[in-house]
Amino acid sequence: MSDRRTEILTAATRVIARRGVRGLRVGELAAEAGVSAALIYYHFADRAALLRETLGFIGDRAERYTTERGAAECRPDDPRDDLVQALLLELQDTPEVRENSTAWGELRASAVFDGDLREDLARATHAWVHEIAMLLGQADPAGTAPAHAAAAERLTTLLEGLSVRWLSGSLPLEQAQRVLREAVEAELTPR
Amino acid sequence: MSDRRTEILTAATRVIARRGVRGLRVGELAAEAGVSAALIYYHFADRAALLRETLGFIGDRAERYTTERGAAECRPDDPRDDLVQALLLELQDTPEVRENSTAWGELRASAVFDGDLREDLARATHAWVHEIAMLLGQADPAGTAPAHAAAAERLTTLLEGLSVRWLSGSLPLEQAQRVLREAVEAELTPR
Repeated sequence: MSDRRTEILTAATRVIARRGVRGLRVGELAAEAGVSAALIYYHFADRAALLRETLGFIGDRAERYTTERGAAECRPDDPRDDLVQALLLELQDTPEVRENSTAWGELRASAVFDGDLREDLARATHAWVHEIAMLLGQADPAGTAPAHAAAAERLTTLLEGLSVRWLSGSLPLEQAQRVLREAVEAELTPR
Repeated sequence: MSDRRTEILTAATRVIARRGVRGLRVGELAAEAGVSAALIYYHFADRAALLRETLGFIGDRAERYTTERGAAECRPDDPRDDLVQALLLELQDTPEVRENSTAWGELRASAVFDGDLREDLARATHAWVHEIAMLLGQADPAGTAPAHAAAAERLTTLLEGLSVRWLSGSLPLEQAQRVLREAVEAELTPR
């Protein structure tokens, strides 16, 4: 991806996380990204295209920070730790994760009202569920593929719910992390 | 509550479910409720007060339709059925439930950006978690109160996540209902 394009998508995520999707105006985005509005329209046909690509950008960024695991706290090559980290790293109080989770939740919430994003959102959701099902398969090889798919649906949906409860001030972060950790343990057969 | 007040809150829920919280303008709400803007300001000090009371109204309405259970499908006085119904009745494709769930999700999503609602939302969330914990206690008397509270947190968070996945077109309703039913069963010790 060109640098300019990445800069625009980074700025779009930041604006959405700060003011919501409905607060995203091309003029403000141009100022945030330090480019002209014309350049934004050069890279993205219209607002719907910009939102779709921002959704993809958020997904890629989440995949990056949830796969930067395996360092300090994890036993290397333990697929259970891999699974727990892939989920728990979405509940961290760092600027990047908070911004990413806020923007993802906001794009999800806006799709309730705006049909444009639904197809891309469903595709991104399915890709995420599939990725977690794969990790479940490695962590729990005795289980079946349909059982892993169902568990991945439960865990990712729970994580989305925990994330918005955390960000909206109804659940402290530590409690959200604990709920998620217990839910993962409950899905795995005991060691 | 006065009839006029109820009419205004009913109309506010409808407008939020149709256009989002940020689409709620007092002028439009007055037209929807068939009252003057002055009457709205007579009943509610400001927009924040109106949103807080709408949140309470949505909660009361959900409590009503989820306690109108026990009829056709349920074995009477079976506390397990009571619990399953109290949760599953939030995932129904009726205009009232769809409207209520959309407005609840939207108020939750807007609280990420707007601090005004957070305290009332946290209180409404805790009341709901507590109610489900009580039903879990009746359905599973062998369990402990802390275990029921933790399970209620998991189930209501999962339900919020399922609801917004359903409403945003990422999960068919039948699948959302199935995921929820299986999650409740997993929380209860086998009969």
